[in-house]
Amino acid sequence: MVRQMEDDNVTDVSEECPPSYPHSAEAKESLFAAFDPALFRRNSEAVVARLESHLADLSVRGLDLSDPGALSRAARALMTTERETIADFDDKRLAAIVDLYVRTGIQVHSPGYMGRQFSGTVPLAGVVDFVGSVVNQPSSYYEAGQLPITAERIMADELNRFIGWEPGRFAMVTTSGGSLANLTALLAARNRACPGIWARGEHRGRGRPAIAVGEDVHYSVTRAAGILGIGESRIVRLPLDRRGRIAARRVPAVLAAAERRGLEVFCMVASAGTTALGAFDPIDELAGIAAGRGIWLHVDGAHGASLLVSDALRHRLRGIEKADSLTWDAHKLMFVPAPCTMLFYRNAQDAPGAFQRRVASYVFDEEPDAHCEFDSGDRNVECTKRPMIMPLWTLWAMYGRALFAEKIEHLCRTTNEAYGVLTEEPDFETLHQPEANILCFRYRPQGIGEDQVHRLQLRIRKQVRLAGRFFISKVNVRGVAALRVVLMNHQVSAEHFRMLLAEIRTTGERLLRDDDLA
Amino acid sequence: MVRQMEDDNVTDVSEECPPSYPHSAEAKESLFAAFDPALFRRNSEAVVARLESHLADLSVRGLDLSDPGALSRAARALMTTERETIADFDDKRLAAIVDLYVRTGIQVHSPGYMGRQFSGTVPLAGVVDFVGSVVNQPSSYYEAGQLPITAERIMADELNRFIGWEPGRFAMVTTSGGSLANLTALLAARNRACPGIWARGEHRGRGRPAIAVGEDVHYSVTRAAGILGIGESRIVRLPLDRRGRIAARRVPAVLAAAERRGLEVFCMVASAGTTALGAFDPIDELAGIAAGRGIWLHVDGAHGASLLVSDALRHRLRGIEKADSLTWDAHKLMFVPAPCTMLFYRNAQDAPGAFQRRVASYVFDEEPDAHCEFDSGDRNVECTKRPMIMPLWTLWAMYGRALFAEKIEHLCRTTNEAYGVLTEEPDFETLHQPEANILCFRYRPQGIGEDQVHRLQLRIRKQVRLAGRFFISKVNVRGVAALRVVLMNHQVSAEHFRMLLAEIRTTGERLLRDDDLA
Repeated sequence: MVRQMEDDNVTDVSEECPPSYPHSAEAKESLFAAFDPALFRRNSEAVVARLESHLADLSVRGLDLSDPGALSRAARALMTTERETIADFDDKRLAAIVDLYVRTGIQVHSPGYMGRQFSGTVPLAGVVDFVGSVVNQPSSYYEAGQLPITAERIMADELNRFIGWEPGRFAMVTTSGGSLANLTALLAARNRACPGIWARGEHRGRGRPAIAVGEDVHYSVTRAAGILGIGESRIVRLPLDRRGRIAARRVPAVLAAAERRGLEVFCMVASAGTTALGAFDPIDELAGIAAGRGIWLHVDGAHGASLLVSDALRHRLRGIEKADSLTWDAHKLMFVPAPCTMLFYRNAQDAPGAFQRRVASYVFDEEPDAHCEFDSGDRNVECTKRPMIMPLWTLWAMYGRALFAEKIEHLCRTTNEAYGVLTEEPDFETLHQPEANILCFRYRPQGIGEDQVHRLQLRIRKQVRLAGRFFISKVNVRGVAALRVVLMNHQVSAEHFRMLLAEIRTTGERLLRDDDLA
Repeated sequence: MVRQMEDDNVTDVSEECPPSYPHSAEAKESLFAAFDPALFRRNSEAVVARLESHLADLSVRGLDLSDPGALSRAARALMTTERETIADFDDKRLAAIVDLYVRTGIQVHSPGYMGRQFSGTVPLAGVVDFVGSVVNQPSSYYEAGQLPITAERIMADELNRFIGWEPGRFAMVTTSGGSLANLTALLAARNRACPGIWARGEHRGRGRPAIAVGEDVHYSVTRAAGILGIGESRIVRLPLDRRGRIAARRVPAVLAAAERRGLEVFCMVASAGTTALGAFDPIDELAGIAAGRGIWLHVDGAHGASLLVSDALRHRLRGIEKADSLTWDAHKLMFVPAPCTMLFYRNAQDAPGAFQRRVASYVFDEEPDAHCEFDSGDRNVECTKRPMIMPLWTLWAMYGRALFAEKIEHLCRTTNEAYGVLTEEPDFETLHQPEANILCFRYRPQGIGEDQVHRLQLRIRKQVRLAGRFFISKVNVRGVAALRVVLMNHQVSAEHFRMLLAEIRTTGERLLRDDDLA
């Protein structure tokens, strides 16, 4: 029954003809063929064989860095030119694509990988993620992702055993990466302190809203101030101690000075640990300072929150139960595919505060039932959200926390051993005793000029990367470049670290000899 | 060499002892066993067999909705209690988990699925995503994801053939979902129009910054105004015509009225198509209005931008080449795993404007080389970003655009057939002729009271969902609930739609008979 002409300005719907584009039986057949289950199995088996070989290859290698132009040509050469019809499936083409994909990545499963905070995933986590990629269950709404959402609740309870919040009162929401989690937490804090910004884009308070952060805070936090309309210039920088941790005893004076400048600090961000050094800010002391002033304490534990599952390392986050919110990346030290970020709130009622509930009748229910309270659409940025918890929950279900604790302790132990190795090398400079699995240092032989140190590290890092045997990173420590290793791979031993130092030394000597530091 | 004591407040580093937690050979062995390539193969093969059966099952089914408490108990029963050691691998436990995961999802590969905008993915896309889950190549930085970043550039060029921007001048960045893309685009627009907000959290202009949107715009857009410090009350609502599209001829008057109220509209958002009806706003006309006033035109094409690849349907986005930015979800009508969102900017220099570049020495290079220009870290929220383009690029490389055009046209054709079926049913009310693959309607038999219509649709939707045979959604159309089908599955035929109508009729008749509409 056509009865849509309710409006005043009625015209005939037939003005818009039904589409009459061609539709061949052949085209339909080839479309359906792309979804053939047997083809799926054939492709899967080819890929699994390739990945198995890849995982079994424990040779020492870092990154095969390609020229972008050459790689682009190689990729284009693998593309079909049959754009107007669905060609027969070309197994060789797919094999070549997968091979190129695997080969051009940082070799995160090799002991040559010591470079960044993402990890060779636990293979089972990849397998479970694969299920998610096929069955496609977005997890912002219970009806679309029943098990992912259930698993989120379970993991929240499991991990809260190590945080220590009141069961039933806290909340956890997954989101796409630590940067987005930090943004979301700061938004929740802003909405609590300055409700007028959400509604009217303005805040009338004692002073201008401001956020206090450590000097080494991740860039996503300072950036969030720009995004949220706080203003990057309203960031109050807290000084660090010599280990790169916020110097808690100096914080009250800095806050008082900020207040005198007309700033109203509503949120303080602690890192656990920092990206540069893996340093853990003193959460316990900072929580005391924040509580006395009604300041929201957010802990960016993207990297280090995972240490909570280890009895031996949990103390690094002493006081975490006093924080208001916590960012925790499982795609770092819980070894699952990226992204899998959990954002915890001590008080569940703070969580929806990040987003004022909007009426969108296609997703929100007018007559809420028992399922609606499990929806997270009003607590995360995403509408369609990957069921990112599933690899983590499955690992936890299969192995318990032991897998994570063992691997994290193993990595921190090896990092400490590497630190011990460094202290015995006269031409290397240590910069900190590692608190976790990040270790920064410099190659600094006798006689090198102060003005050469910075550039030497940058050049060494590039040369080592280019050589392709080891992959490490670099970072400025107290304004001067340093070499940085992040041990995410349990295949790395102290012996591998010695090999790395030898390569750095050879590289550094060559650079100094060639005086290539202009 | 220990030479870290550069600061004034030097104390002995040995105050912090190296960790001395236990470390058994057994624990180490079981840790390494979790990464065993042979175990990976065994698990993969078990999962592939399960998924193959799942894909082959074309029975008509929707969603098996579970009680959250019961599902939680079922999930917990599958978890190991061996938390302190890594137990031997339990194949049966994994099989049960995968089975529960597959069974509790919306059956997106079944012809009973007609409900939402995510899709049963092309199986090959899942396979490629699987590679990404194992090799883990975050793609905000070239060195970490060489092929994903190369593939992004290639896909940008491929798809821009249908947008029509000047090659080499436009830009594309991938991000985690359409909501985040809309937020990012609005941020770029805000930063161009009101640079003071980023730096100082304030803007001094002619009026208060405001955003103009259609009444049916996705909730992520109005929410973005709250997040970005514009203020939700600074949203200017543009009226729709009877087909649910922004009534372009009425826009100038609305903008003039907003200006008189002290608002300075710096951005207008058009939908292509809307979430509710799949209606396409008249981009061409809106672009003319925006250009004359220096307003940024953002097009939320999360759902409908994919129609650009079809020669038969491209005209729905006429004028797209005049837009300033475009959100395009490949996880909707390009049938890849979520998320895979592309955010296009007509002018590449607008893209970095979304985030003022921050110096973070661990990721940004002080001495940029040929690779740095490929980094996207300063153009997307994410630091660690999933290499989400790879499934899309691989499909495009293997099948060309034909696969996408064929499937989209097939879906739109079936939706139109379904509309035709509806018009012949006297107890159903049509609400619009579908422009794409979304069709809204009501069950409205003769004699039903006006006050019953709204609730009847909501009840029918819930009952149909609960019955588990079909999965459909609902939405308010002009303030009254409607039933909504979104045809994302090419397995759905007009015949399936007739079966759905029969079930709706039976359900509706029962509800009316039981007078269960209080």
